[in-house]
Amino acid sequence: MANVKKLQELDQRLERTESQLQVLQKISRLMARKLSLPQVLQAIVELVMGVTEADACLIYLHEGDTLVLGASNSPHPAQIGKLRLKMGEGITGWVAKERRMVAIGQQAYKDPRFRFFHDLPEDTFEAFLSVPVISREEVVGVINVQHRHPRRHMGGEMEMLMTVGEQVGCIIVLARIGELADSLLSPVETLLASPPLPPGRKLG
Amino acid sequence: MANVKKLQELDQRLERTESQLQVLQKISRLMARKLSLPQVLQAIVELVMGVTEADACLIYLHEGDTLVLGASNSPHPAQIGKLRLKMGEGITGWVAKERRMVAIGQQAYKDPRFRFFHDLPEDTFEAFLSVPVISREEVVGVINVQHRHPRRHMGGEMEMLMTVGEQVGCIIVLARIGELADSLLSPVETLLASPPLPPGRKLG
Repeated sequence: MANVKKLQELDQRLERTESQLQVLQKISRLMARKLSLPQVLQAIVELVMGVTEADACLIYLHEGDTLVLGASNSPHPAQIGKLRLKMGEGITGWVAKERRMVAIGQQAYKDPRFRFFHDLPEDTFEAFLSVPVISREEVVGVINVQHRHPRRHMGGEMEMLMTVGEQVGCIIVLARIGELADSLLSPVETLLASPPLPPGRKLG
Repeated sequence: MANVKKLQELDQRLERTESQLQVLQKISRLMARKLSLPQVLQAIVELVMGVTEADACLIYLHEGDTLVLGASNSPHPAQIGKLRLKMGEGITGWVAKERRMVAIGQQAYKDPRFRFFHDLPEDTFEAFLSVPVISREEVVGVINVQHRHPRRHMGGEMEMLMTVGEQVGCIIVLARIGELADSLLSPVETLLASPPLPPGRKLG
């Protein structure tokens, strides 16, 4: 009997560990491909949703002294690239500023660091896990995983999300470089194209 | 009795999966830090050696139409940055050219693609696992894992090494960018420093 219980336990642990390994392998595969940043972030949101069985997953990107919503599972595409938080503002801003993970199992909305947006339904969720996205020792974003109901965050899950954060960090940096390279390699015609002259003006 | 055997099996699988997950997490942690490329590659060689129980691990970097030895477990530091293979030459060159993994369980040195260097003791090893390092759909290197004795390469191990390859791909690209950025940000004095005038010549 003791063995049967042990067997079940091991089976569950193996399943969890394998699915975490698979998430990292899938993210790694995404990194090796030449996808656009929104495509990769969206795919990562879906992977994280699956493995954490979350009700919401949002990725913010660091830009100047703000954090911009870069991807989200939920159907508010209008806020992608628009919704902004200041560094230090809300739990997300705190995580970015302090470069530390926050895990709140229940009543996250009561946390003094919480900033209520009113426009995101996720702001009423119970559990909140927020990790900084770091690349070459710089904060380049934040990933949030939220559950509607209270939840005890497991060590393995937090560890995995930290790794996802590091991976996303590299992806963001690589994407920025890709854009830079593309702009450096843009055809000479584009670079030399002069804006149309205002009406009534002539050359010479 | 059947349960005891099943228990042992599960235990071993769990241990293997956990150690593979740990390797990826450790590599990810290395990526987030600001280390030099040789430091990171050396640390990865050691991680791969540990998890695969290999007798040798070598990482080659793609440069022009050659592959240059970038890191290795074994004590031939003189060959780092020196030992070169042409694309398509040997198993390593074949892997880079074809962008495909090669897994040879025994007598790797008899493979027609094998090129005998004479200067590396690893060239007499039995088992050879070689994976392309890919970033943004470009081959940027090759990782080789070798065992002195014959070995059946497991699917999980090959999958893990493929992921390590993708991670190393990003690390190489990030390191190149870091160097480029450093050179772009080098102090104006360095940029403006003119070489000393040849003796006997004077300005004006």
